[in-house]
Amino acid sequence: MTTLRDQLQHKIDFKTKPLGALGQLEDIALQIGLIQKTLSPKIEKPTMLVFAADHGLADEKVSPYPKDVTWQMVMNMVTGGAAISVFCKQNGFDMKVIDAGVDYDFPAGMPIISSKIGRGTKNMINEPAMTTEECELALSKGAEFVQNEVANGCNTIAFGEVGIGNTSASSLLMHSFLGMPIEECVGAGAGMVGELFKYKVNVLTKVAEKYNPATPLETLATFGGFEIAMMIGAFIEAKKQNMLILVDGFIASAAMLTASQFEPELKDNCLFCHKSNEKAHKVLLERLGVEPILDLRLRLGEGTGAAVALSIVRSAIAFLNEMASFEEAGVSNKHP
Amino acid sequence: MTTLRDQLQHKIDFKTKPLGALGQLEDIALQIGLIQKTLSPKIEKPTMLVFAADHGLADEKVSPYPKDVTWQMVMNMVTGGAAISVFCKQNGFDMKVIDAGVDYDFPAGMPIISSKIGRGTKNMINEPAMTTEECELALSKGAEFVQNEVANGCNTIAFGEVGIGNTSASSLLMHSFLGMPIEECVGAGAGMVGELFKYKVNVLTKVAEKYNPATPLETLATFGGFEIAMMIGAFIEAKKQNMLILVDGFIASAAMLTASQFEPELKDNCLFCHKSNEKAHKVLLERLGVEPILDLRLRLGEGTGAAVALSIVRSAIAFLNEMASFEEAGVSNKHP
Repeated sequence: MTTLRDQLQHKIDFKTKPLGALGQLEDIALQIGLIQKTLSPKIEKPTMLVFAADHGLADEKVSPYPKDVTWQMVMNMVTGGAAISVFCKQNGFDMKVIDAGVDYDFPAGMPIISSKIGRGTKNMINEPAMTTEECELALSKGAEFVQNEVANGCNTIAFGEVGIGNTSASSLLMHSFLGMPIEECVGAGAGMVGELFKYKVNVLTKVAEKYNPATPLETLATFGGFEIAMMIGAFIEAKKQNMLILVDGFIASAAMLTASQFEPELKDNCLFCHKSNEKAHKVLLERLGVEPILDLRLRLGEGTGAAVALSIVRSAIAFLNEMASFEEAGVSNKHP
Repeated sequence: MTTLRDQLQHKIDFKTKPLGALGQLEDIALQIGLIQKTLSPKIEKPTMLVFAADHGLADEKVSPYPKDVTWQMVMNMVTGGAAISVFCKQNGFDMKVIDAGVDYDFPAGMPIISSKIGRGTKNMINEPAMTTEECELALSKGAEFVQNEVANGCNTIAFGEVGIGNTSASSLLMHSFLGMPIEECVGAGAGMVGELFKYKVNVLTKVAEKYNPATPLETLATFGGFEIAMMIGAFIEAKKQNMLILVDGFIASAAMLTASQFEPELKDNCLFCHKSNEKAHKVLLERLGVEPILDLRLRLGEGTGAAVALSIVRSAIAFLNEMASFEEAGVSNKHP
């Protein structure tokens, strides 16, 4: 009896092209076919959930931008001016922006989904970012948002984020779960280069040395952010719902790494959309053993890499569903 | 007085994102703005011209596929089953298939543009692939096709090809114009690996040693193909018409290299859409000093890499035209 994997591979191999000539598009088509358990996969209602929150650690100036930029960028997203808004519109993503814990009162009537766990996390230089209760609440809220999308007929999901200070939280999670030195887990974020980079590493080293969390949940509560925890809940639920998950850059990949502590098979459902220019991201992708789709030197976050990559994923599905086989097209084939 | 380049860079830098955070998309946006001489570039009627022809050298079995595959693939393209048909449809490319010299009589009524220079080139193991008259005719036909598209309102063009044996012709052109050893200019084509690869290198070495063409035109006539020469004429005209040119893989890049012997500033108008898995292509891109957009291990030809990359080019234009500036969005900026 042939397996679905064999059948998919056969379908791919007998398309009118030299064997393997569509490279990574063939791998993507195979993976999506296996996720959706079909020879004819489809992308239905692709949705981008963007989680926003503030970080107490921003008080230590680990980002060159002031904390106010978080709420300002949320407003920019919902009014269509942010990169993620533009790329979602271009690529047919339904974008939803979720306030997971921004330290600001948004005006009524804006299309922002209110789900504040708090008004920003605590400054982890002094105390854990959040309590385990807050962390659990964020995880369950994230799961709920995904359930809602599934109920709407969505089978393909991506997660974006905005939150001044959230590359720092991501670096600490990567450091904790991979056991790698802090320096290798840190990037320039929104612009911490030269002396500023050294300063960021010093702050994060101090934070890392202060705590010794025992479980993944405690680690996440200590070092995470509300938007990151909510995204992790969303990752876990998306795996449970067997969705195709498009993973963006450094922060989303660190969230995926954390989520896979709870859901070890998560990677099977994930496409890693790009290798960002945030240097720790390259290291993280290598440790995950995955091949990113794009390498455009993006380092913007928000979900932008996933939004831009969707059309490549669509190309993979299109060739699998629409190309003729050698037999159908009457083209001479050399392989058996 | 500020130059257009300064104005474009300023527009890019003051979008709501960290400086440089859109990486290669920023370079693409700048280049297209400079080509179109505007701060708000547009893609109008993107068109994919696919040139098809046969090669006398195919008799030497430099491809694992029989020559009949050329006409069979042309039929597959115009009936929608080829990879290029699928990707053009997905990405909004208008695809036109041009018979530049296929050794076959296509049935009447098929949407194939008839422009045969001959029924395949001569076998260059014995004599030059074509006469200089045939070569000049192919160049001028290629220019005409581009003029027609410009008259239709097209400002963005890509070139694809099909022709069993055409990676061999491309390798010889690369060898001639870059002065590099044949082995470095050869790839596996549609599947020449191991002993077959060595055989292909031997055949091409014999051909290269037989001739000593004096001019670019003579070189092209000796080693080229009808579809390649027509594509070169199209490249040259597209530069004259100041179009945005999307360059596909190895064969299109070798044609671009050849065309730039006639039109030295051609590169300014070209985006190199992908790095193919044909190993000589990597070398060629490095020698041209260009950064490809995609690296998906494609090695299919037909124009497929350019078709798949169009959406990334659209992303670059979309962010430039649609993203808000810091000032417009009321977002705090840290750079002056």
